[in-house]
Amino acid sequence: MLSQTSKKQILQSKNKIKHVMNKGMNQYIALCGGVGGAKLALGLDHVLQQEQLNIVVNTADDFQHLGFYISPDIDTLLYTLSGTNNKEQGWGRADESWNFMAACKTLGIESWFQLGDRDLATHVFRTQGYKQGLTLSEITKKIAQQLQIKSRIIPMSDDPVSTIVNTDIGKLTFQEYFVKHACSPRVSGIEFENIDKATVATEFDNVLNEESLNAIILCPSNPFLSIDPILSLHNVRKRLKDINVPVIVISPIVNGLAMKGPTVKIMQELDMACDVVTIANFYADIADGMIIDNQDAEFIKAIEATGLKTHTDNIIMNTLQDKINLAEAVIGFSKTL
Amino acid sequence: MLSQTSKKQILQSKNKIKHVMNKGMNQYIALCGGVGGAKLALGLDHVLQQEQLNIVVNTADDFQHLGFYISPDIDTLLYTLSGTNNKEQGWGRADESWNFMAACKTLGIESWFQLGDRDLATHVFRTQGYKQGLTLSEITKKIAQQLQIKSRIIPMSDDPVSTIVNTDIGKLTFQEYFVKHACSPRVSGIEFENIDKATVATEFDNVLNEESLNAIILCPSNPFLSIDPILSLHNVRKRLKDINVPVIVISPIVNGLAMKGPTVKIMQELDMACDVVTIANFYADIADGMIIDNQDAEFIKAIEATGLKTHTDNIIMNTLQDKINLAEAVIGFSKTL
Repeated sequence: MLSQTSKKQILQSKNKIKHVMNKGMNQYIALCGGVGGAKLALGLDHVLQQEQLNIVVNTADDFQHLGFYISPDIDTLLYTLSGTNNKEQGWGRADESWNFMAACKTLGIESWFQLGDRDLATHVFRTQGYKQGLTLSEITKKIAQQLQIKSRIIPMSDDPVSTIVNTDIGKLTFQEYFVKHACSPRVSGIEFENIDKATVATEFDNVLNEESLNAIILCPSNPFLSIDPILSLHNVRKRLKDINVPVIVISPIVNGLAMKGPTVKIMQELDMACDVVTIANFYADIADGMIIDNQDAEFIKAIEATGLKTHTDNIIMNTLQDKINLAEAVIGFSKTL
Repeated sequence: MLSQTSKKQILQSKNKIKHVMNKGMNQYIALCGGVGGAKLALGLDHVLQQEQLNIVVNTADDFQHLGFYISPDIDTLLYTLSGTNNKEQGWGRADESWNFMAACKTLGIESWFQLGDRDLATHVFRTQGYKQGLTLSEITKKIAQQLQIKSRIIPMSDDPVSTIVNTDIGKLTFQEYFVKHACSPRVSGIEFENIDKATVATEFDNVLNEESLNAIILCPSNPFLSIDPILSLHNVRKRLKDINVPVIVISPIVNGLAMKGPTVKIMQELDMACDVVTIANFYADIADGMIIDNQDAEFIKAIEATGLKTHTDNIIMNTLQDKINLAEAVIGFSKTL
């Protein structure tokens, strides 16, 4: 165990490095959803200073289950940034146990959505918060404070929005598609229910107007399921298009494969080419630059033809150091745009 | 799916079987609350046949906590009769884990009331049931069916009643007194909030009117906190007084000590003598017989002076065999009255 003095020295030297790195404390926005996005968010959280990073999170996967309000993408970030996530499993909490689920099965309670015993506390906290009349932003801030998270986690909206996946077996809510049916139905389209009635969360709105805003980062999340709900909120796509700071995309696809989840499967089902150029086209109207993996260097010309500058790097984030390296590359690249 | 005709046939044949099964199948009622009462209920459950035992349970300890509807005395019975109770700890569930509670503490969620991970499933089931408009009786029956419990567990009422303990530190709800303050405040009185508005549960009412009713057993539960709420429901004390079947009390006190919980402490604080005669007097107007421990044989005369017949036995229930023996003694004694 480190002595208090050594801890302090490390902290001081860390702060010094950060101070030099982040002179002027500029703000960054990262649009994020899912596990892939959270990996880069963790890298950015390490590289940037306290409250310099504003992670705007997809909430269209949120749903109510067994009386609990569940925000899967926010929870993934809360757990990832507090170091309480399950690194082996890739989702949920570390040191998790499943005795609640086991008892649910005995009682005949529906058990297709896995709720870990520790994870449940987060849902209870959120559900109680809603009952007390708090917004999702307020609830999320309280949880983040308790978990001593230094970046801001901001729900895209405090109003309910629900992703509906149109499939060959009918319309499914996101969790039905993603968890209950394990992404197996064929997707023919994606809708965001109530998106027209939803308002951008105040903190998201504020930071978009922030003079000290330095860059907007589109994390390597699923573009259609995680980022598109955020962009589809009233005026967001237009504001990102018009904004005078660089908007950078990090490709969720490497060598034709998704880093995580059903991105490629959905692209195939929607008759899209499964490569980084499709991603570039999807974001071309709002983005200024794109980071792709070294393996996809052959696509640089095609991407630059869409109007995006490119940077190639290793974007596969297995270790914490990979995440920090990519975060540093993102910040570095943003300064060139 | 079954046709309406087949369903009807099955129902008719089921009813016929039941009719045959329950021919002569005398019914028993046990009034019960807490861990002490559940011990005898388990003995009776072993000794009596399927659906022959109707355990009417105190619900005045019920409360809402973290959004869950919790019925501690019903849960104790559900776990005890299904063999899923924690025998070492004396409350809660076997093979329990506490990761939900640990995560609650990290989030700053109030944690004075212990909710085990497996236990939570019961509260979720009940809370969902209430949201669907079911009564506590209906919910309890469903849980008991899932846990394959052979006796009927009947809440005393489907209306909310709350025990309020008047103490030297003010009025406390039962769980505040019992759990949060670990029974340490000095008790000056006990009230049952909303008792006047509460109706006896239909099944309790029905079995009290049942021609095949053989006896009513007052379990060795706390008379003031567990049994008195049941007796205080509209007309119950009078109906037990007037009923033409034996009413038998099993003493919750042995040699001046309570088998479990704060019975003796409360008796001292309410200036009562801490012996079986006080218990006899408390039930004298409704009971016909009382079972006391062999150690209390010296009080037989004093008890019989209150009008109760007595039977002495070993009433301390450590093992399952102790519980079965006492249950057999209760049934045997009831036939002599």
